[in-house]
Amino acid sequence: MNRDPIGIFDSGIGGLTVVKAVREILPGEDIIYLGDTARLPYGTKSTDAIMRFSIEDTQFLVDRGAKYVVIACYSAASVALDIVRERFPVPVIGVIQPGARRAMQMARTGKIGVIGTALTIYSGAYEKAFRDLGARVEILGKPCPLFVPLVEEGWLDHAVTRLVARDYLEPFVKDDIDTLLLGCTHYPLMMKVIKEIMGDINYVDASVEVGAELAQSLKDLKLANPGAAGSTAIYLTDLSVNFKEIGERFLGEPMKNFSRVSLKESH
Amino acid sequence: MNRDPIGIFDSGIGGLTVVKAVREILPGEDIIYLGDTARLPYGTKSTDAIMRFSIEDTQFLVDRGAKYVVIACYSAASVALDIVRERFPVPVIGVIQPGARRAMQMARTGKIGVIGTALTIYSGAYEKAFRDLGARVEILGKPCPLFVPLVEEGWLDHAVTRLVARDYLEPFVKDDIDTLLLGCTHYPLMMKVIKEIMGDINYVDASVEVGAELAQSLKDLKLANPGAAGSTAIYLTDLSVNFKEIGERFLGEPMKNFSRVSLKESH
Repeated sequence: MNRDPIGIFDSGIGGLTVVKAVREILPGEDIIYLGDTARLPYGTKSTDAIMRFSIEDTQFLVDRGAKYVVIACYSAASVALDIVRERFPVPVIGVIQPGARRAMQMARTGKIGVIGTALTIYSGAYEKAFRDLGARVEILGKPCPLFVPLVEEGWLDHAVTRLVARDYLEPFVKDDIDTLLLGCTHYPLMMKVIKEIMGDINYVDASVEVGAELAQSLKDLKLANPGAAGSTAIYLTDLSVNFKEIGERFLGEPMKNFSRVSLKESH
Repeated sequence: MNRDPIGIFDSGIGGLTVVKAVREILPGEDIIYLGDTARLPYGTKSTDAIMRFSIEDTQFLVDRGAKYVVIACYSAASVALDIVRERFPVPVIGVIQPGARRAMQMARTGKIGVIGTALTIYSGAYEKAFRDLGARVEILGKPCPLFVPLVEEGWLDHAVTRLVARDYLEPFVKDDIDTLLLGCTHYPLMMKVIKEIMGDINYVDASVEVGAELAQSLKDLKLANPGAAGSTAIYLTDLSVNFKEIGERFLGEPMKNFSRVSLKESH
């Protein structure tokens, strides 16, 4: 048993969906969440930059006593999981592997589509995750850079969003995939539009999967906190105009305990 | 006469349009350009964050001997011009005032539309600029958050871009404005689509105006360098996958002399 908090970080507030999932499955755990809102997005930047940012984010959580670190940002999890594991003594889990594992269980034809930021898709992280699982699947990846700005604009059910989604998802329709991995925290909010285009196939939202995998891992490592009333503390590197409104969309409840922080630069 | 360089900063590489304009009007000047690509965009973040970033950006340029600083980022110029002027001993010019001055000269009916990022529009910087000029004009502002991602996606002439532009610009069409101020470095690249919707009105791109105003100011302050073969050095805080391709779209020529730098945090 260990009463230290679980640390979760993301480039912004989309990772609050992971907080929500962990809260539900592990109600006794204290959670500290760091959203690097001053430097978001991560998905359009270089691998180098995101590795550096991820180390700074993890340092912040470890300095506050995190017993376990969850990389809730798909872009960061795609390129920085190994270096974060190397640099810090605590166990670290990312959102890539749990999603890949779930997709493998669901896929019937073995044709899996993956959507994400440019960084996530070009990194080849999903190909590696499926390879490590020994999966014989065919992966089709497609970066969807306009999805995040569309969700942040609140155009979840808008003609423009439909047109953009149709453009991005067309290769998947043609190729008849049977499972679609939503490789970005923002995409589940667009589910309605995505389903209109892709129809009745399997969808994987790794936010939920990562919660289940974390619960199992905490149990295995004897790090779980069996209490019933864990707390959530939210730290953000910038408090922009509408962060609360957007944040609560992801968290699914009012955002209460939050503050602005600065990070130490690692260079 | 002063042979020190002119410093120009922006949140990313869009400000290279200002470099291009300054290069043309002041061929003898050396230019150092800083693009804060690791933390872009600025226009969706808080006033506090952008003031802090702008001070760090200016410090970088002043440390490298800049005799004059140009804020090429509309969001930064909207909220940080005063604090940067206060903190540094060199003259500082932003992209807001030169654009407002030009718009005032052009507007016949006195109805001026302004488009920009959320930060630029909500800051009221243009209203203040017109007031300072003693202008009796009616300003209609509209944030267009999806324009930057659309330009970065390269969808300059795409059905989606047309639909988004029609949505954002509709209030201007209804209100019969006679001059439109393009208050963001990226927007001039969308000129074709904007003109399709707004038709034969006046358009102001402040990148060009700021070059002329800078030339006059350098002359007045006896800081000009009358040479003929100035150099351009480009510093970026992150080198992302396609920065060269997008950068050259703004610069209008091959990007040669560039390097990645880290900034000192001011907190």
